[in-house]
Amino acid sequence: MKPTLAKGVQDKQVREQILRDTIVNVLESNFKKYGFNPIQTPIIERFDVLTSKYAGGEEILKEIYTLSDQGQRELALRYDLTVPLARFVSMNPNLKLPFKRYQMGQVFRDGPLKPGRFREFTQCDADVVGSSSLFTDAELLALASDVFSELNFEVTIKVNSRKVLDALIPVEDKNGFILSLDKLEKIGSKGVKLELLGKGFDEKVIDSVLDKLSLDYNSLKAELKDGMEEIDSVLNYCKLLGVKNVVFTPSLARGLSYYTGTIFEVFLNNSKITSSIGAGGRYDKMIGDFSGKDFPAVGISFGLDALMSALDNYDKESYVDVILLSINQDDESIKLMQLLRKEGVNCEFSLKNVKKGLDFASSYKIPFALFIGEDEVKNNKYTLRDMTSGEEFKFGLNDIVKKIKRL
Amino acid sequence: MKPTLAKGVQDKQVREQILRDTIVNVLESNFKKYGFNPIQTPIIERFDVLTSKYAGGEEILKEIYTLSDQGQRELALRYDLTVPLARFVSMNPNLKLPFKRYQMGQVFRDGPLKPGRFREFTQCDADVVGSSSLFTDAELLALASDVFSELNFEVTIKVNSRKVLDALIPVEDKNGFILSLDKLEKIGSKGVKLELLGKGFDEKVIDSVLDKLSLDYNSLKAELKDGMEEIDSVLNYCKLLGVKNVVFTPSLARGLSYYTGTIFEVFLNNSKITSSIGAGGRYDKMIGDFSGKDFPAVGISFGLDALMSALDNYDKESYVDVILLSINQDDESIKLMQLLRKEGVNCEFSLKNVKKGLDFASSYKIPFALFIGEDEVKNNKYTLRDMTSGEEFKFGLNDIVKKIKRL
Repeated sequence: MKPTLAKGVQDKQVREQILRDTIVNVLESNFKKYGFNPIQTPIIERFDVLTSKYAGGEEILKEIYTLSDQGQRELALRYDLTVPLARFVSMNPNLKLPFKRYQMGQVFRDGPLKPGRFREFTQCDADVVGSSSLFTDAELLALASDVFSELNFEVTIKVNSRKVLDALIPVEDKNGFILSLDKLEKIGSKGVKLELLGKGFDEKVIDSVLDKLSLDYNSLKAELKDGMEEIDSVLNYCKLLGVKNVVFTPSLARGLSYYTGTIFEVFLNNSKITSSIGAGGRYDKMIGDFSGKDFPAVGISFGLDALMSALDNYDKESYVDVILLSINQDDESIKLMQLLRKEGVNCEFSLKNVKKGLDFASSYKIPFALFIGEDEVKNNKYTLRDMTSGEEFKFGLNDIVKKIKRL
Repeated sequence: MKPTLAKGVQDKQVREQILRDTIVNVLESNFKKYGFNPIQTPIIERFDVLTSKYAGGEEILKEIYTLSDQGQRELALRYDLTVPLARFVSMNPNLKLPFKRYQMGQVFRDGPLKPGRFREFTQCDADVVGSSSLFTDAELLALASDVFSELNFEVTIKVNSRKVLDALIPVEDKNGFILSLDKLEKIGSKGVKLELLGKGFDEKVIDSVLDKLSLDYNSLKAELKDGMEEIDSVLNYCKLLGVKNVVFTPSLARGLSYYTGTIFEVFLNNSKITSSIGAGGRYDKMIGDFSGKDFPAVGISFGLDALMSALDNYDKESYVDVILLSINQDDESIKLMQLLRKEGVNCEFSLKNVKKGLDFASSYKIPFALFIGEDEVKNNKYTLRDMTSGEEFKFGLNDIVKKIKRL
């Protein structure tokens, strides 16, 4: 048989997985710095949980993968990490609040395929459950800002509030209006107006909304009191937290229906990648649907695959530090290799001849090769070659470890 | 609605996930030390790939979760990481050999539930593809030995070879015979004999096999040449590699049908957990089924859930190092917190009052609390309380960082 992958899923090669590790480490260390702790929920959930009232909404439901458990129950693969969190919170009523958790894992959506859009992909989420303080919203923006600065990304964090949108748009079918408004940057105000007229909205209303969107911060504040007070508060906390790249964007909408307050999206500056690389918001109602009791909550989600396409400099092809090349000294080489491993050096022993071993090292950019011949064993000094510069050193064990670890 | 979990899957609480991180870190660092590199394959695979000739065998096929891709193709959830590796190798013909990869991830089996047996569980595998050297087999045993010694487990690694079993058991239906023999330690030779008689095997053959199993190493070696030469070789390499806890066990069988040479299982000494916590073997034929070309291969799989039940000392409940308690000094506290985070300290800011903050810290065993009041801000010296001893210190920022990181 000629084996292939299922449509819309990917293998990750070594160089990709090493880059992924780098990003995951940055995310994890920042989640921890900001007081988040890890949990894990299963990939398989009950279908009725994933399709509950405040869950992902109609658009996502069409894309659920279903399966059955020996034909007994209706099961499904999770399509995000937020609905499972809501289920988790409701099943663990004794959690001390605020509960700050992070989770990273694959999620599944059986939707249309586009370049860069997959059916199995990884989300990295941090959420705070049980605090309605807007300080929490700002802290997530600070977290995002730290993550991207550590990854050397220049980003803009766009912030808005569902309450601003509510005050701004005096119509019944807010969702339809919001979906068009979300395209303001892409298609301009003329394009948005045309689309909204097409949807049957009143021209006067459209013009008034678009006019308000062109107001400066203080004038808009005077127009829309409530939501703007919250935005004010979040922006002030951001200042205290040292976040510099936050921009209030009253047209920012976010698709998902469960948001109730602050919403935000992170975009790369000057990049070919124009979709957001992180996003989130406050959803104070969703958990209540599961637990019968409302829990204020706010979260952020980083798309690992989007981050990887933004970072795609694969400068490391292997975790191996040194390849050991034995010249008829297999037994001694093996013993030496174990000593190096005890010191935490990542070693590989070439089972083939020296030339093939060197080729192997070059093709995977392994930084060092260690030659072990008769003289070397006799004098307990081995030849270490720096594979980049070609330099060679005659070293004992300790100096080999020092040289390799200085990398 | 009252949300519940699907049957046979689990949530991992924070304390479990922290313990899991510890184990995963030990596994990953040892995989790297031994020259392995990470890849990732998807959870969703094509049904025809997972049910291919040399794949898991009939027993596992009954337990496959199937799903469909918009009704177009037959898909399934992976039930191990070995069959996907075989697919990966055949789809990447230009891999430099030997290809040493590790992968950790969830796998799915819709089988009967027992205590400690789940339908979604995590495997951590290291495999070497493209080397038939028995040194490779021994290296996996050295890797296992290092992992368990770092986790402070006392283990016995039982080793056998399919070739030993072939020479030992002169019957057609080897699998039926082997499945009974595998129970030798559990039910004794009398029990095994009864079971084999019940399966219709010849009494003389049964007696002769059981007799041979009681022979000492050298006598057995004289009886069965071929497979024993391989065992000899593996055990010699183990000596060179410094592995001490390997025991040749001619009755060890391993269920899976794809093994062709060395097989091994790791057991805890003096533990209530009697099932193996790691296992593997050589499978030189399976990849050939996918690629049309035989690749020798050998691998080991660690069961993360089994390791967790063996280790279940949850001594850490949170990654948070210090909780900041503001006494009417919120703005200053927030600024100080960001400085601590810059130094890599994991911080949490109590949004509630001081007493609630201290309770929160105690309940999650957070090691430090930092009090920030008017005097503290004025003098730039803060009160750091060691939550275990109750000791308090008046420190500036640098000393706070030093004290916390010394932990």
